[in-house]
Amino acid sequence: MTASPAFALVDWGTTSFRAWAVDAAGQVLGERRAADGLVAAGPKGFGRVLEEHLAALGVPAGTPALLCGMVGSRTGWVEASYLDAPVGLDDLAARATAIPHEPRPVFVLPGIAQRSDAEPDVMRGEETQLLGVVAEGFRTGLVCMPGTHSKWVRLDEGTVEGFSTFMTGELFQMLRSNSILSQAVATEAAISADDPAFASGVRHALDEPALLTSRLFQVRAGWLLHGAAPESGLARLSGALIGLEMAGALARHDAREAPVALLGSGPIVALYERALAVADLGSPRRLDADACVRHGLLAAARLLFASKDSGR
Amino acid sequence: MTASPAFALVDWGTTSFRAWAVDAAGQVLGERRAADGLVAAGPKGFGRVLEEHLAALGVPAGTPALLCGMVGSRTGWVEASYLDAPVGLDDLAARATAIPHEPRPVFVLPGIAQRSDAEPDVMRGEETQLLGVVAEGFRTGLVCMPGTHSKWVRLDEGTVEGFSTFMTGELFQMLRSNSILSQAVATEAAISADDPAFASGVRHALDEPALLTSRLFQVRAGWLLHGAAPESGLARLSGALIGLEMAGALARHDAREAPVALLGSGPIVALYERALAVADLGSPRRLDADACVRHGLLAAARLLFASKDSGR
Repeated sequence: MTASPAFALVDWGTTSFRAWAVDAAGQVLGERRAADGLVAAGPKGFGRVLEEHLAALGVPAGTPALLCGMVGSRTGWVEASYLDAPVGLDDLAARATAIPHEPRPVFVLPGIAQRSDAEPDVMRGEETQLLGVVAEGFRTGLVCMPGTHSKWVRLDEGTVEGFSTFMTGELFQMLRSNSILSQAVATEAAISADDPAFASGVRHALDEPALLTSRLFQVRAGWLLHGAAPESGLARLSGALIGLEMAGALARHDAREAPVALLGSGPIVALYERALAVADLGSPRRLDADACVRHGLLAAARLLFASKDSGR
Repeated sequence: MTASPAFALVDWGTTSFRAWAVDAAGQVLGERRAADGLVAAGPKGFGRVLEEHLAALGVPAGTPALLCGMVGSRTGWVEASYLDAPVGLDDLAARATAIPHEPRPVFVLPGIAQRSDAEPDVMRGEETQLLGVVAEGFRTGLVCMPGTHSKWVRLDEGTVEGFSTFMTGELFQMLRSNSILSQAVATEAAISADDPAFASGVRHALDEPALLTSRLFQVRAGWLLHGAAPESGLARLSGALIGLEMAGALARHDAREAPVALLGSGPIVALYERALAVADLGSPRRLDADACVRHGLLAAARLLFASKDSGR
């Protein structure tokens, strides 16, 4: 029975749930993706939701599960600790929190906190992706992790030295859906990384970050006065916010001095590649976010469940 | 009958309705304030809402009414034109749009547009306040108009030379009410202009505008890691956004080179005064926004209805 799962790996966020059954060699035996994030799973019961998905994956009772993400936050299943940066990513497994649960051992990985008074910051879930990034051989440099709350992380030989979170994705969604700009950006079309309005938005934000909210309003004004197309308005809005993130990363992390890895999945990757190019941040190493979180969970699971592994 | 209204003046915005009955000398005979902005009044019918309020004010049929604000926008009663900046504020009255309506003449003042391809911008309502600012004797300099969409306007001898809109107030409300920051700023307490967290937020935005969205996320991180009080978080959020507006005004309008007038009403004025001080923009001339819009409407009404006035 080489196909018997050695562990279940779960990336459990606010709005999404992903689980993999893997064997002892790390081969993926099955995968589940569902909208059972914290918001949906909380009322149903985290333990019940987990078991439903693991049953569907054919993971037997007793096989341990390792979780990461917001499921370990104050609003999740249990509140797992934060490790304090600077911190080596190898420490994650050893500091996992056990969750009392039947019929299997369940652990959740800690997040990472930057406790400085001047620059407080937190991550939960990204640390596991970073473990995967290191497993892929990117051990020193800057990691750009686009998302609802984008992270820029300084790695030095597998240690998280420091990081900054930018609210890029959340602001984009808020402004797109529910602001004075909504009419001017109302389209279902995807943003093209080649749209000149996107690059223009990035460039303006890099050149004059102080004018961000004025540039945002100009998206509406351009639509009112010049009949600017909503596709172009949406690209400009996205460019402004991603460009401000680039400007912030340059201001905070000496981004020109280090190799950059871009960790993402889906259409956002092309936009960030274009923005990095506009910001003269060259050609980043591209890594797949989904693969990295799985590899990170796998690396931690091997450390954490080593004795169980060898017992099979 | 010295108390007979010469005209009705109406400032009609998206969420608010204010009307004054004034005599030929400009004396206020009565005032109405209601939540009958566009959103509420549209379904009821603009004409009907206007007449209800004017009846309550004792404004007889035949007495003309002059309107300003978003009631003259695409989503309002009629779409009034925009005058193109640079434009003298004396031109507003001559370019008012007549609204077909019984039982009185009704006009709405135009907005002002900046049609430049690079810096498109629009105002509707603020131009009438500016007419009041000029009537108060502030004819040359920068006018700071805090609000949902704050305006910074360059005046030269009563001419609007150019302006910029900042989405400061809208972003503040969105982030406060409906974002990852909401828990960290959940308080009913008013923001104190003396709160060091407010000045700190302003200072950070002035020094490093590119880090805006990172500083915003730090409001949450400071609450999670250091137990920062929500009052302090709210002050920091407000300071970050108002500080970015100050940085933008400095970047765009040579704000240090000109006298500054601060046009506002209510608690926001103290916050802007503090932020202007942190930005080294000295002591602005304070003008009351409510008084200015009334004075602007009055000045325009006198020009527009001159013949009717003299006929009384």
